[in-house]
Amino acid sequence: MRVLGVDPGLTRCGVGVVDGVAGRPLTMTAVGVIRTPAEAETAERLVGIERGMDEWLDAHRPEVVAVERVFSQHNVRTVMGTAQASAVAMLCAARRGLPVAQHTPSEVKAAVTGSGSAEKAQVGAMVTRLLRLSAPPRPADAADALALAICHIWRAPAQGRLQQALVAHRRKGSTR
Amino acid sequence: MRVLGVDPGLTRCGVGVVDGVAGRPLTMTAVGVIRTPAEAETAERLVGIERGMDEWLDAHRPEVVAVERVFSQHNVRTVMGTAQASAVAMLCAARRGLPVAQHTPSEVKAAVTGSGSAEKAQVGAMVTRLLRLSAPPRPADAADALALAICHIWRAPAQGRLQQALVAHRRKGSTR
Repeated sequence: MRVLGVDPGLTRCGVGVVDGVAGRPLTMTAVGVIRTPAEAETAERLVGIERGMDEWLDAHRPEVVAVERVFSQHNVRTVMGTAQASAVAMLCAARRGLPVAQHTPSEVKAAVTGSGSAEKAQVGAMVTRLLRLSAPPRPADAADALALAICHIWRAPAQGRLQQALVAHRRKGSTR
Repeated sequence: MRVLGVDPGLTRCGVGVVDGVAGRPLTMTAVGVIRTPAEAETAERLVGIERGMDEWLDAHRPEVVAVERVFSQHNVRTVMGTAQASAVAMLCAARRGLPVAQHTPSEVKAAVTGSGSAEKAQVGAMVTRLLRLSAPPRPADAADALALAICHIWRAPAQGRLQQALVAHRRKGSTR
């Protein structure tokens, strides 16, 4: 499974591609950051993120895109930009027919460190170890994007079983 | 000036086209709502809003798109969806090279009713009067989209002068 993880943001949108399946060693294929100028209008910045996402999707052909789920409890000043950048990332994936998964920051931290309240440095250290890198990816947004992709690969089997159970349950309900 | 006003939302995204200039009677060209199913995944809903926006832009060829500025102080449950829908609306306009303006809900209310804290019904009544309609547009999201377009037409001259003053000020600064 090839997953593109996206840590959304208007100034720095982290992107990371990881190949692998749960229970086997994982491989990092690419990592980077889509940047847009802080002085540009929001609408122009969203066009820049769309362009960057399309380039990453064309270059790496992921099977799934995993995006951080944005909550409004976060920093009020930045959350709107984060929500808007995540919308563009999800849109670019979905209009190609790619499945889009969302994971919360604490799900991601718990997946890679064992603790949903881990510090950023701990996430970076585990990403480095799990992908057998020589140093933590910089900036932190790039490491977070890789952590999202790893989280998705590890959570996907459980989510798939849950999805199947839900479908079976609904079918059962509809034939009652 | 032809303005497409957008009252963003995932469930109902109000859209309204108004023709006119400040100080002259205004004309409504079209009004409607882009809807996406509540049971669909967010990413799919954003694709639906993109499709709807592109149809409205193709059909009515506005010169400017005015979108409601989303604040995170609002209802925490719906604000994320509103921010994401607004991102798609702004993206669709900006990638065609159209200018995108944002106005706050209180700016819109103040423009059409004289009070920034006016009730929804009062906004609907004034939109009906200003556009010489036989009844307030339904649902309220459609009326709000028209109010945004009207607000933009009336505020644009002042904003244009401010923009010119800023440009002149910056030029003056750069030749010091």
